[in-house]
Amino acid sequence: MKKQNIPCITLLTDFGHKDHFVGTMKGVIKKINPRADIIDICHEVKPQDVRGGAFLLSCAYNYFPKNTLHVAVVDPGVGSKRKIILVKTKNYFFLAPDNGILSYVRHKENFKKIINVTNKIYFLPQISNTFHGRDIFAPVAAHLAKGTPPKQFGKMFDACGLFLFPFPKNKQSKNSITGEIIYIDRFGNLITTIKKDDTGKEGVKEIYCKGRKIKKHAAWYSGGNPGELISIFGSAGFLEIACVNGSAQKKLRAKAGDKIVIHLKNKK
Amino acid sequence: MKKQNIPCITLLTDFGHKDHFVGTMKGVIKKINPRADIIDICHEVKPQDVRGGAFLLSCAYNYFPKNTLHVAVVDPGVGSKRKIILVKTKNYFFLAPDNGILSYVRHKENFKKIINVTNKIYFLPQISNTFHGRDIFAPVAAHLAKGTPPKQFGKMFDACGLFLFPFPKNKQSKNSITGEIIYIDRFGNLITTIKKDDTGKEGVKEIYCKGRKIKKHAAWYSGGNPGELISIFGSAGFLEIACVNGSAQKKLRAKAGDKIVIHLKNKK
Amino acid sequence: MKKQNIPCITLLTDFGHKDHFVGTMKGVIKKINPRADIIDICHEVKPQDVRGGAFLLSCAYNYFPKNTLHVAVVDPGVGSKRKIILVKTKNYFFLAPDNGILSYVRHKENFKKIINVTNKIYFLPQISNTFHGRDIFAPVAAHLAKGTPPKQFGKMFDACGLFLFPFPKNKQSKNSITGEIIYIDRFGNLITTIKKDDTGKEGVKEIYCKGRKIKKHAAWYSGGNPGELISIFGSAGFLEIACVNGSAQKKLRAKAGDKIVIHLKNKK
Repeated sequence: MKKQNIPCITLLTDFGHKDHFVGTMKGVIKKINPRADIIDICHEVKPQDVRGGAFLLSCAYNYFPKNTLHVAVVDPGVGSKRKIILVKTKNYFFLAPDNGILSYVRHKENFKKIINVTNKIYFLPQISNTFHGRDIFAPVAAHLAKGTPPKQFGKMFDACGLFLFPFPKNKQSKNSITGEIIYIDRFGNLITTIKKDDTGKEGVKEIYCKGRKIKKHAAWYSGGNPGELISIFGSAGFLEIACVNGSAQKKLRAKAGDKIVIHLKNKK
Repeated sequence: MKKQNIPCITLLTDFGHKDHFVGTMKGVIKKINPRADIIDICHEVKPQDVRGGAFLLSCAYNYFPKNTLHVAVVDPGVGSKRKIILVKTKNYFFLAPDNGILSYVRHKENFKKIINVTNKIYFLPQISNTFHGRDIFAPVAAHLAKGTPPKQFGKMFDACGLFLFPFPKNKQSKNSITGEIIYIDRFGNLITTIKKDDTGKEGVKEIYCKGRKIKKHAAWYSGGNPGELISIFGSAGFLEIACVNGSAQKKLRAKAGDKIVIHLKNKK
Repeated sequence: MKKQNIPCITLLTDFGHKDHFVGTMKGVIKKINPRADIIDICHEVKPQDVRGGAFLLSCAYNYFPKNTLHVAVVDPGVGSKRKIILVKTKNYFFLAPDNGILSYVRHKENFKKIINVTNKIYFLPQISNTFHGRDIFAPVAAHLAKGTPPKQFGKMFDACGLFLFPFPKNKQSKNSITGEIIYIDRFGNLITTIKKDDTGKEGVKEIYCKGRKIKKHAAWYSGGNPGELISIFGSAGFLEIACVNGSAQKKLRAKAGDKIVIHLKNKK
């Protein structure tokens, strides 16, 4: 029986910091696997915002050591019939509810093995209907990191049985692209669905967001006058609208899903 | 001298995340005991809310490895004459101000040994009046986890000398139980003082909270229509009022201490 | 090649907890240096508030084990031409943008060696203009803690080339001192620039803040009636204005930079 040799367990949840939930999950992990190295990715996903969690996970996961186990618990359907899945990709493991939270990872990674986690031997003896983070996700993660082979947790099944949502598609015409805001970060930067390659060789002529023309494209966040709206290619590779020393979210009263329109230079 | 072999130190405070307080406590611990494994239970207890902290600690502590040391610093009386106590139960250690924060743990656990922590050898050389988390709790925790026997920290005393508050008592009549909201979590779920056993074999007929009838009892949080108020038995074993995909706290403008009334089915 | 033997890496940022930024930095560190012991000092520095970050770092850094590496990323100029510096003091290492965030540490510590961090061998292969925490600070920290000698990261330069701001100076007259609020903590305590020594042997006669006389000087936070404004010497050694069981910030509508005036007893 080959050990997985999992170096880290990461946690991404919507449990917040106000309660004991995250700490309790860590207690359960440590009780089973005292040497587990647990790292928080984020716990302030908006309650039940599976898409927001999916985006954050897709930004962070591949910066971790090979064979890291990523545990993602944004789980509005906890206790109901949604599956819990364990996914193996080339370099990582993912443990999550089958509710779409792995959708954007799936966009980048081949799912080599998918297990329907059902084997109660690896759960806590008493399973609540409201806190599977503690009762199922934490102990399964701990056992996996301790060397239990993935196949012990349940039956394999096929990726086509997964609940996944697509990455929002930009509308491309000859002279423009329409995308949307996919995520807004702490600084109020509006992260859009538009990648550098999308704008082609011709390049960007004008950018509009919430009816406002974004006049300046900058190379960094301080590349403009204080209060000025700028566009910038951000750290996840997407076009962002930012406000120098301020919040573009507040300035534009923007929210996830709002449109962004890019006019391209004319092709010759 | 027998080593305690303490595997983890947990921290529960009202220090929040805005300041350096928690980080500084960890620095002090690591300086004395570089191998300490420190886990956060919660730092967002409402400032000075000893009861809220007591509740969270009572939900989390027994999910940790045997011999974990739980350090709880919600301490409005810092610097004044309140004691600092080290408590040994069958499976855990607790280090806390003697202000009631261990009250709900006491409800579940026998306190086998109680030490009045007074030995300044184990404190930082300079003790402020405002930050005992750094100057007393952290170094004492580090020394204990390093193997210093509990009796070195001060004199033993009796549980009857402790400051404790009772768990709020439900009022039970033949056909109803009146309890109260003891805690509200991040999701706005209203956790009450009513346990499953309290409702007896007859079972629940109707539930009222803030003048509203809670029409549906569900098995999980998504067990109703979006926006619907439901009752549910939560992960700590208490009856909760929840709002599907929303916040029962906002919907009912509820706060800790508000009453909940359960009408029972008539006994035969 | 002598190893530094760095026991901890601390992180202080304005990245908040809403996003994946801090988690991703930790992933990068662990990928390079799996045994790194990473401790959070604070991530809720107000966005781009270099002075607030500088103050927190100066309060916390010297409670950590000898040779701890403190990484401070409050970096509004990320991607622009500001330097990234590695500083060695007698007992600590600091890695930070050269934007003043080390100013208050500098107030207390001699900078023995300063390196202009430029060697891209130790950066991530792809460097964004917006997230140097991930692309530069994290990998450099990991390599340093793994034993890479400081001089490998770039050229040494002199402290007089650093961007530093002074600690706010009190105005002292014969019978009074005027200082300012330098930081406000989670509890709404107003931390001022006035130290105990500043008030001399004569002692304090009266204290005014925001036009209000602070009538009581207390030894601890609970040393007054609920709601009463008190003055107190806090854990960082500065005079604080606090409100018993409340927030002095809210009560006085105070903000960083507001003045505080102390009338001294007459000299004989």
